[in-house]
Amino acid sequence: MAPASSVAVENLNPKVLKCEYAVRGEIVIHAQRLQQQLQTQPGSLPFDQILFCNIGNPQSLGQQPVTFFREVLALCDHPCLLEKEETKSLFSADAISRAKQILATIPGRATGAYSHSQGIKGLRDAIAAGITSRDGFPANADDIFITDGASPGVHMMMQLLIRNEKDGILCPIPQYPLYSASIALHGGALVPYYLDEKTGWGLEISDLKKQLEDARSKGIDVRALVVINPGNPTGQVLAEDNQYDIVKFCKNEGLVLLADEVYQENIYVDNKKFNSFKKIARSMGYGEDDLPLVSFQSVSKGYYGECGKRGGYMEITGFSAPVREQIYKVASVNLCSNITGQILASLVMNPPKVGDESYASYKAEKDAILQSLARRAKAIEAAKAAEKAPDAFYALRLLESTGIVVVPGSGFGQVPGTWHIRCTILPQEDKIPAVITRFKAFHEAFMAEYRD
Amino acid sequence: MAPASSVAVENLNPKVLKCEYAVRGEIVIHAQRLQQQLQTQPGSLPFDQILFCNIGNPQSLGQQPVTFFREVLALCDHPCLLEKEETKSLFSADAISRAKQILATIPGRATGAYSHSQGIKGLRDAIAAGITSRDGFPANADDIFITDGASPGVHMMMQLLIRNEKDGILCPIPQYPLYSASIALHGGALVPYYLDEKTGWGLEISDLKKQLEDARSKGIDVRALVVINPGNPTGQVLAEDNQYDIVKFCKNEGLVLLADEVYQENIYVDNKKFNSFKKIARSMGYGEDDLPLVSFQSVSKGYYGECGKRGGYMEITGFSAPVREQIYKVASVNLCSNITGQILASLVMNPPKVGDESYASYKAEKDAILQSLARRAKAIEAAKAAEKAPDAFYALRLLESTGIVVVPGSGFGQVPGTWHIRCTILPQEDKIPAVITRFKAFHEAFMAEYRD
Repeated sequence: MAPASSVAVENLNPKVLKCEYAVRGEIVIHAQRLQQQLQTQPGSLPFDQILFCNIGNPQSLGQQPVTFFREVLALCDHPCLLEKEETKSLFSADAISRAKQILATIPGRATGAYSHSQGIKGLRDAIAAGITSRDGFPANADDIFITDGASPGVHMMMQLLIRNEKDGILCPIPQYPLYSASIALHGGALVPYYLDEKTGWGLEISDLKKQLEDARSKGIDVRALVVINPGNPTGQVLAEDNQYDIVKFCKNEGLVLLADEVYQENIYVDNKKFNSFKKIARSMGYGEDDLPLVSFQSVSKGYYGECGKRGGYMEITGFSAPVREQIYKVASVNLCSNITGQILASLVMNPPKVGDESYASYKAEKDAILQSLARRAKAIEAAKAAEKAPDAFYALRLLESTGIVVVPGSGFGQVPGTWHIRCTILPQEDKIPAVITRFKAFHEAFMAEYRD
Repeated sequence: MAPASSVAVENLNPKVLKCEYAVRGEIVIHAQRLQQQLQTQPGSLPFDQILFCNIGNPQSLGQQPVTFFREVLALCDHPCLLEKEETKSLFSADAISRAKQILATIPGRATGAYSHSQGIKGLRDAIAAGITSRDGFPANADDIFITDGASPGVHMMMQLLIRNEKDGILCPIPQYPLYSASIALHGGALVPYYLDEKTGWGLEISDLKKQLEDARSKGIDVRALVVINPGNPTGQVLAEDNQYDIVKFCKNEGLVLLADEVYQENIYVDNKKFNSFKKIARSMGYGEDDLPLVSFQSVSKGYYGECGKRGGYMEITGFSAPVREQIYKVASVNLCSNITGQILASLVMNPPKVGDESYASYKAEKDAILQSLARRAKAIEAAKAAEKAPDAFYALRLLESTGIVVVPGSGFGQVPGTWHIRCTILPQEDKIPAVITRFKAFHEAFMAEYRD
């Protein structure tokens, strides 16, 4: 006779047990408890509000969505509006025409229908056009897989490439915990390479090479290299020369290049510029046969910050037809990504242009968001990691005495012997001075208590 | 030196290679090719339109969405509308108040923010209230995980329960291919039990028991039982007595009961009634400690048919706190499901009620859709499977000579020696006569050609 209930932690999938996701881990669960405590017993803690800096979620912290994007979404959700006279005074003319254009590419104008497993063809055409205009090299709608944010695309590639614990994925340390979580869930090996904090989190090919050879000597079949550019959590923007070397390295070593490019609009210094890895590879003369390359993009980042809409895409080039069929099959098992996110992915890659009615307001909204983020990027620099104590302990103490929620660096990985926290810069600007004051007081007290 | 590119079908994850998903498999890919051919060379085929009956996608075939649902979604997407005078004449009063109510439960009214990993608390409260009123037994928002349609919930549970190829999941045959695909992707064993076509696709406990013992004798650790009720692709509605026996069986055998209840609104006969397995279990006096039970629901089915919105939920009861933490962690790795789908999931579980301004039009829309589906359920009965030839061959020939796309029964599983196709009933009613005519002519010719 079997036991009354046979499900216990001990007999769950060990890959699930092994997986960690610090961005929503112990600290965040504790913060949710403290938030409830503040609601039920106001005044019971030395602060009156929990500030979630653990995850990049700007709209939860007051950032407003771009009006044009939301106008188009509302019209696509309820197309009857397009036949009403009042709509002309409620919506901008280019939002109305964009919605009509999008609906015309959807069979039956049906925004409630499952789409092609890769996403609606017309929206993929728009995304490909946006990539082409960004890079100056052609992009193809057949290479685009629209996804519910970037995460499902990353999972799909890990699922495809990882057969067992002897398959390795080269990941930057610090990394974004999605990669370690996904590799653990699929039972592979994370092969770390270290970004060098002293050189602005630079990526050394010699270190890459060393880590690759080290892994191979242990019998690991290294299948892919993850590069996050611009970096998360480090914020670095790779120099063009560095990107050339990375592309050459992947080609020579037979690695898939998984390019996490979701921060392509988040560059806050004038002397840095985003270059997609596909643009770099094509400008080196590398074509489809030279390099399997996946570029991930998301509507959650940039100035758009539409996290809750779960939109994004991956652009896949350099894979053989039979391999692409397998990617298509995996995408098919979940049928399709949500249509609202699909539409938004097409919009962020094709925002209003000069001459469109919405252009001026769109530009003003976008610039205000990016300029404000840039000011906060500098402000937060001063409040970085303590080096004298383990990061999780530091983060827990920080939360308990200030209500500020950050992520310990161990969730991202870090050079052994160093400790970091990850703190987003997304509370609205007027709240930043108070955050810094509390943070500073905590930090000084912490340092006084634990200094050698 | 590694090869120039090391990615080939031969070295992909064998679980991915093994996975099949007939609903979007070879027949559908061929149909997409024929559809392109019809666009570029009209008149080149013996039909002028491809009819996708392979998947339940009603809005792609002309079914209109429920107006109230779409009004609420549009207002939530673009909340500025709520401050405009014109909105009162464009939207129903109860849609406006529902949107305000929903926005009030979202921190910062931010429909573009990541939510709690299980979904927005206020929406989970609404879903729990809907379940409570449906079942007459209490439901708890903490037990609800809002998901991008039902599929991700099913994958999450398979990922949690399946450790290796010795972990088995009891699945009905015929089944919906999501289950075989998900079990294959997670590397487990599908343990079949057969629904009996002669008794209206009934489920025999004696067969369940036999299959379970058979699997155990082969060293399979059977972890869960999947029941699809109402059935897909069979359409049966389980009798209450049958459900009691299933619940008892799961409790006695220590199985998780995975109840696919996405067709709860798709019942076309007066003498049948949907009972959720949770209602059945609770009415037997079984509580949290007796039975781990997961109920899946989706916005894609019923009269709503909002497939593209990717909304749904799973209600999880009877798991220990440490196991629930693991489920929460897996949900967290993808951050949250899309907010539009979350809102819709709360709406389908709480549609307009008597007295609401929208009630009359909502009721009329809902009844018209369900009555039309009921008429088509009978019409399509006459066009079922051929028994003389393999189903995939039949489906391919059907497509090539008529443009009608169906799914071979082998993708769903079937009693050995029998052959089926799966055909949805979702083309709009006025198109059905033409479909039947083409289908009939094909079928007669096919039978004449291949009859013994």
